[in-house]
Amino acid sequence: MMLKTHHCGTLTKADIGQTVTLNGWVQRRRDLGGVLFIDLRDRTGIVQTVFNPDFSGDALAIADRARNEFVLAVTGTVVERDAETVNKNLATGEIEIRVTEIEVMNSAKTPPFPIEDSVEVDESLRLKYRYLDLRRPEMQKTLLLRSKASKIFRDFLDNEGFIDVETPILTKSSPEGARDYLVPSRVHEGEFFALPQSPQIFKQLLMVGGIERYYQIARCFRDEDLRADRQPEFTQVDIETSFLSQDQLLGMMEQLAARLFLETIGVELELPFQRITYEDAINKYGSDKPDLRFGMEIEDITDIVATSDVKVFASVAASGGVVKAFNAKGCGHWSRKELDDLQPFAARYGGKGLAWITIKEGEWKGPIVKFLKPEEIAALTERLQVEEGDLLTFSADKKKVVADVLGNLRLKVGRELGLIDDSKFKFAWVVDFPLLGWDEDQKRYVAEHHPFTRPKDEDVHLFDTDPGKIRAQAYDIVLNGYEVGGGSMRIYKRDVQEKMFKALGFTMEEAHESFGYLLDAFEYGTPPHGGIAFGLDRLVMLLTGRTNLRETIAFPKTASATDLLMDAPSTVEQSQLEQLHIRTVLKPKPEAAKPQE
Amino acid sequence: MMLKTHHCGTLTKADIGQTVTLNGWVQRRRDLGGVLFIDLRDRTGIVQTVFNPDFSGDALAIADRARNEFVLAVTGTVVERDAETVNKNLATGEIEIRVTEIEVMNSAKTPPFPIEDSVEVDESLRLKYRYLDLRRPEMQKTLLLRSKASKIFRDFLDNEGFIDVETPILTKSSPEGARDYLVPSRVHEGEFFALPQSPQIFKQLLMVGGIERYYQIARCFRDEDLRADRQPEFTQVDIETSFLSQDQLLGMMEQLAARLFLETIGVELELPFQRITYEDAINKYGSDKPDLRFGMEIEDITDIVATSDVKVFASVAASGGVVKAFNAKGCGHWSRKELDDLQPFAARYGGKGLAWITIKEGEWKGPIVKFLKPEEIAALTERLQVEEGDLLTFSADKKKVVADVLGNLRLKVGRELGLIDDSKFKFAWVVDFPLLGWDEDQKRYVAEHHPFTRPKDEDVHLFDTDPGKIRAQAYDIVLNGYEVGGGSMRIYKRDVQEKMFKALGFTMEEAHESFGYLLDAFEYGTPPHGGIAFGLDRLVMLLTGRTNLRETIAFPKTASATDLLMDAPSTVEQSQLEQLHIRTVLKPKPEAAKPQE
Repeated sequence: MMLKTHHCGTLTKADIGQTVTLNGWVQRRRDLGGVLFIDLRDRTGIVQTVFNPDFSGDALAIADRARNEFVLAVTGTVVERDAETVNKNLATGEIEIRVTEIEVMNSAKTPPFPIEDSVEVDESLRLKYRYLDLRRPEMQKTLLLRSKASKIFRDFLDNEGFIDVETPILTKSSPEGARDYLVPSRVHEGEFFALPQSPQIFKQLLMVGGIERYYQIARCFRDEDLRADRQPEFTQVDIETSFLSQDQLLGMMEQLAARLFLETIGVELELPFQRITYEDAINKYGSDKPDLRFGMEIEDITDIVATSDVKVFASVAASGGVVKAFNAKGCGHWSRKELDDLQPFAARYGGKGLAWITIKEGEWKGPIVKFLKPEEIAALTERLQVEEGDLLTFSADKKKVVADVLGNLRLKVGRELGLIDDSKFKFAWVVDFPLLGWDEDQKRYVAEHHPFTRPKDEDVHLFDTDPGKIRAQAYDIVLNGYEVGGGSMRIYKRDVQEKMFKALGFTMEEAHESFGYLLDAFEYGTPPHGGIAFGLDRLVMLLTGRTNLRETIAFPKTASATDLLMDAPSTVEQSQLEQLHIRTVLKPKPEAAKPQE
Repeated sequence: MMLKTHHCGTLTKADIGQTVTLNGWVQRRRDLGGVLFIDLRDRTGIVQTVFNPDFSGDALAIADRARNEFVLAVTGTVVERDAETVNKNLATGEIEIRVTEIEVMNSAKTPPFPIEDSVEVDESLRLKYRYLDLRRPEMQKTLLLRSKASKIFRDFLDNEGFIDVETPILTKSSPEGARDYLVPSRVHEGEFFALPQSPQIFKQLLMVGGIERYYQIARCFRDEDLRADRQPEFTQVDIETSFLSQDQLLGMMEQLAARLFLETIGVELELPFQRITYEDAINKYGSDKPDLRFGMEIEDITDIVATSDVKVFASVAASGGVVKAFNAKGCGHWSRKELDDLQPFAARYGGKGLAWITIKEGEWKGPIVKFLKPEEIAALTERLQVEEGDLLTFSADKKKVVADVLGNLRLKVGRELGLIDDSKFKFAWVVDFPLLGWDEDQKRYVAEHHPFTRPKDEDVHLFDTDPGKIRAQAYDIVLNGYEVGGGSMRIYKRDVQEKMFKALGFTMEEAHESFGYLLDAFEYGTPPHGGIAFGLDRLVMLLTGRTNLRETIAFPKTASATDLLMDAPSTVEQSQLEQLHIRTVLKPKPEAAKPQE
């Protein structure tokens, strides 16, 4: 077997004169008057090999039978190309290989799509033939970058004294959070393991266990209703530390992110990252993951229109809602259709409507203008910095709805006006998340992050008076409008944990039923601790400029949680189910229904 | 919060005079006439802190309430100990901390067992309180070494151009091999994912996909009947490469092992590793994972005793079995009881008996001696290098039984004679494994490694004549009698794959039903490839001198596949099962049986 001495894509003029053996796939073959040119491709790139009766001997006839995607081994000499045949688009474009020996390592059927980047292929075909899709330079580059990113995370964390600890995949079903994937036990009849939604409990137990600094690039599982941007299994860089403050941890993580971006894509991040409170993020950008690559903030105008003749403004203000405005700078020229489309747009985000005013030739125009008092117009002009050509939009509703509507409108306008620089990477920390959220269905508070999230010290007293106001020592790291990580400091004192469970409507006894092992552990000297997890799939997606998580995963599942390549999930043998003490309960199929008598 | 500026275990005389803040757990407290000494422990070790009315102020009274495993923060000055109080057993034994400030970060109940290495604790108690068990220096050291070992694997492989690719955990049930863990699908009624027994299929698909060099530290799952030394989930360092020969791959892996041992435990391995064929390993050591730290080889004496008056020897030889002897050097003094115990020992390994001869004062003694002819005695004397004081043992049976019996006797004798040097790490490659084994139940050949294992080129012709004789390009890496890894070169040519399936009794159509996606992939230009996987748990066990895989895993399961800490597996809500379209099928419990009428 002729095994490679060099890679295809890295040969340059420096190698001229060398005899090399290359292994790779046929990218393209051309026969120019009895001289055969084969572009040979491996992981590193493409190089042109030449078969000429003058120097190739029998190799020419053998090469002539090769077709696209055949696997070849060739030996030959690196020579300089004639000036007129130099290919500037190819890293190896200044040289070619004069082949003297060849071995056809394997033949290939014609692939269902060409192995190149620019081609349009249906994604389901790409997933079915993922092993061919992975040959495309774009996919190779992505997987290579992903591997490199993992390595950078590891190198950095290792250097900071974090210990890589593996936690179980076969674990226990958790009482809160998303749906678990379950695994029936053969040995323990009627019992089930669950796949972890995250190593949360284990990483806290490791802190109790004195590991002090833990990390793991961990597979996590959520049996959620899938959206385009979700996978049933995903990977997070999971980090937990004892004896560090939130500030120390966030500072360290910024350094980590800076190194990641520098060493993968050569981008230098500005440090420190902007820190913005949850409250400010919602108020100014209508989102807890604001895209800060452009400005255009949302303004609260409830005070200005509280007694307005615009009835919806006044009534919303009176009933405890908010009225906010967003000035779509320079969008005053929007057509009637574009303005009309604002209503369904608002509806998509739960809004009942979107009032608008255009400023054209110094005049305010729009359905609500006639109801505005001069002093209101003056106040709006100042607060919204209204100028000729602007489009003012108004949403009046509950705080969350207003934020969703105007936050998304802000993004739409930012994109349409070309304000978003795709080459920019704008990180920020969103901090001071609320500890608790009110669940209207259950009529009780629920943990916004999880029941072990530490409240801010200065807010602990609010457990007795106004739990909904408590801010948590919880933080997200956002990048260009995406949440790429998040975490919190954890409760480590029993009295605070008791207050937390009380606020959630649990007695300590009830909490023990759900979290017994962790609460037991907390009794034995728990250090102050906290952590964070980064979404690796999403980070790689942003680093490579892709728009779909599936592009970052070697063997992803579709939006309906199917592996098209392996054809999984699939039916299994009845005997397998019997061993696991389960049977399937299938809905009767319509055609199997009994005919009515 | 007083956060650490230094670690407890790394302070030395070089730090004298410094003011330090330490965080850690109370290992021990002693009150010596109003002066309080607290040994404070963190991940790095222990340091003595001193509370004295002269310099500690209020801190003394606060410290006085601390008990074992309380979490403390202390600030103080590093001072030299008096000469007579220097503790040579402690890395920090030359200094102590004069504490001026203290914070009790957390209190602790008395732990169920002391947090120290030397103590005897029932393992189930340790597993239930794993978070306390992990605080013991021994466990911390093991997890730290495991993390370091993973890092060394990664650094080495990354440097050699291997790409870390994550493969799915939710995948398809495989038709061969051990029992799968299954995961019912909520979206696809009646269908199941399976957890991978190894990433075998995926790593081969990655080679088809042109990744060329892949690795992954991968979690694998086997629902096997558990033995002390097995875990339902385990970790392997999974490696696959294209365009490398077996020799190149094994050589690279030796370098990797050498680096691993040097950088974790400072042991320099001798390179290259010994290579021994499977045939030789079985013949000489009775095992395909021979412990080569000592000699004492087994000898085939079938030729010598083929016509012996020892009837069992002659009849076994005549019926195609083998007769082998093992000279337990210097064991001629064994008591009658010890010699009698050889029979149940042989039985344990499937042998029907073990003949023996002792050499005492120049005389051969034992039940079979009288049947041996002088020329047989002469031949045995020479072949077995018989000397005064030896114990000769003989097994006559099928080849496999003889190997098991004498191989295990060899290990027993080696251990009892103290021939095994525990400080030695003796690696070897066992190569040329048989490709196929005959399954007496199914009356057909089965793959010894897996159906994609490449036969040796020079043996391919035997498919037509004597498939059982084909040697595979398969190899195990063994260390001190343990298999710590194994792999093979893979079939990449369709004609060889067809021969293989034919030998296994499958048509290509039947093979397609089981391995369709892989066989399809192989049609599109598969490079020559092969790989190996190392058992990380076992390697860490050997590196740390432990004797149990559970000691190397942060949160292991018991021999009955139970997580004692989390209490998993467990029953789940009926609604969860309904969503997954399954129900449990439980055997009726005896007490629930209807009374007979």
